[in-house]
Amino acid sequence: MLVAVLVALCGGVGAARMLSGLVRVVPPQDLTAIVNVGDDMELHGLHISPDLDTVTYTLAGMDNRETGWGVAGESWAVMDELHRLGGEDWFRLGDRDLATHLYRTGRLRAGATLSAVTAELSERRGVPVRLLPATDDALRTRVTLAEASELGPAGSEVGFQDYFVRLRHDVAVSRVRFDGAEGARPAPGVMESLEEATRIVVCPSNPVVSIGPLLAVPGLQAVLEARRADVVAVSPIIAGAALKGPADRLLAELGTESSVVGIARLYAPWVGTLVVDDADAALARRVEAEGVRCVVTGTVMSSPERAAALARVVLDA
Amino acid sequence: MLVAVLVALCGGVGAARMLSGLVRVVPPQDLTAIVNVGDDMELHGLHISPDLDTVTYTLAGMDNRETGWGVAGESWAVMDELHRLGGEDWFRLGDRDLATHLYRTGRLRAGATLSAVTAELSERRGVPVRLLPATDDALRTRVTLAEASELGPAGSEVGFQDYFVRLRHDVAVSRVRFDGAEGARPAPGVMESLEEATRIVVCPSNPVVSIGPLLAVPGLQAVLEARRADVVAVSPIIAGAALKGPADRLLAELGTESSVVGIARLYAPWVGTLVVDDADAALARRVEAEGVRCVVTGTVMSSPERAAALARVVLDA
Repeated sequence: MLVAVLVALCGGVGAARMLSGLVRVVPPQDLTAIVNVGDDMELHGLHISPDLDTVTYTLAGMDNRETGWGVAGESWAVMDELHRLGGEDWFRLGDRDLATHLYRTGRLRAGATLSAVTAELSERRGVPVRLLPATDDALRTRVTLAEASELGPAGSEVGFQDYFVRLRHDVAVSRVRFDGAEGARPAPGVMESLEEATRIVVCPSNPVVSIGPLLAVPGLQAVLEARRADVVAVSPIIAGAALKGPADRLLAELGTESSVVGIARLYAPWVGTLVVDDADAALARRVEAEGVRCVVTGTVMSSPERAAALARVVLDA
Repeated sequence: MLVAVLVALCGGVGAARMLSGLVRVVPPQDLTAIVNVGDDMELHGLHISPDLDTVTYTLAGMDNRETGWGVAGESWAVMDELHRLGGEDWFRLGDRDLATHLYRTGRLRAGATLSAVTAELSERRGVPVRLLPATDDALRTRVTLAEASELGPAGSEVGFQDYFVRLRHDVAVSRVRFDGAEGARPAPGVMESLEEATRIVVCPSNPVVSIGPLLAVPGLQAVLEARRADVVAVSPIIAGAALKGPADRLLAELGTESSVVGIARLYAPWVGTLVVDDADAALARRVEAEGVRCVVTGTVMSSPERAAALARVVLDA
């Protein structure tokens, strides 16, 4: 019944939950996660990879489920002191989390690739899933703000974390682009795993700023289109809204209906099947009208057991 | 009696103690400390300035007097986690100390100069003395090892901290050079303060690897030679030995007698007066034979009061 080789396309929290369901129903070593790096940033000279870290911490069982980011039982000695110094403390970095960034940055400065460092970190954290950054090259999500904010007038382009964390994604967006995407090459293993996968799962991550940067890596969308029949996406939109984050507003602001129908339309070129929540059962026919098979089930992963149940439906879809 | 404008040439621990004596006998705002940056390094992507930090922490009253580096009452959450990750942990960075490095690195990456960041950090730490890095440019002490070590065969050149911390300066040295010195410019205020000082104090710092990098900045030795009559050095060698660190061995390995006479010979071109410890009273005549005035007093700064007493002698010399 269960697939032999599985690839998941991942953002942060939603993807981490999907993965923690998938590892309960397939052997983890048969699972490859291709993870967004558009959120990556340099801060205090450190290379921070929020989505890779969220996935790693979750699969290592050390994630903070209350915040959805960082490490459970974290301490804050460095941040507290940085705050006293009047340093930039809007992006909260816990002490244990900082060790990850120190390790990663030191290895990158020494010439290691992001995929090599990701493999080292996930091995040392005991993560049995193969984690691949979408690209080892610098691909950075940049957001043009439709309104004035503390970071500048309407029309200012800011880094993703400036929008997401600093402005708490509480400002309208007129454009999203992926700086460096044209020259980015898929990380080693990305294309091969997509070509060889018996099933490709699109996690319920933000279509614009988590899945978007993956598709922006030259070659990725083409291979996904070629594998369309085996690509199953889980809708990140339930009853018109995102469970977490600004996916619903971003979709609307950028001209896509914030519904499972909008998701189907957006993903139709490269997704064969869309899994939608029971709450959207009435829209199944409209999804299929977009040329995408529709499967209806419970998609809210409020526990590992529910995530595993969803994973089973996704694999059987 | 006391001088109006005072400049101190500084390495780390010995200089920090001398400064804590000087601030007890002159108004701190009349004191400028020019600090070695040859020890600076990049580690984990962070810019670390050990001598500037030792001086800052000491003058802020937050230094760890047991270790001679770092912050008193420090915590180690990041390092402990980095150790668990198998990261590079030979250079111990405490949590509060790390906040300094994050602040500095972030500001440098944003385009600030090292002197600007140093001024910000010392102001925020409540340090009333003006601290100047010798240069804002990259000047790095490099050490050629005369013996084989875990870092390579005899003849290998390594970074200063590799020699000093990683190898615990427990290996013979055949050469010291200051990478980047030719192109380094004195930081803003350095030349002016040396030209205008009524007295210039050379702290009892390592002559080779603390004072040496200062002299290597083009222009510094010339201005010191022009001010020779007003330059007073405190010998870092007492009875042939350094109180701390490898100054004695480095001097001998590089062909200078490890004694106050050797110091006098080394400093004679630009130092008018050498203050030596009571233990070296018998060598005063040999010091003066080098063309350097000799003052004999207690130079071991085992308490702030003794440091202040030494400071008084230095200023009256």
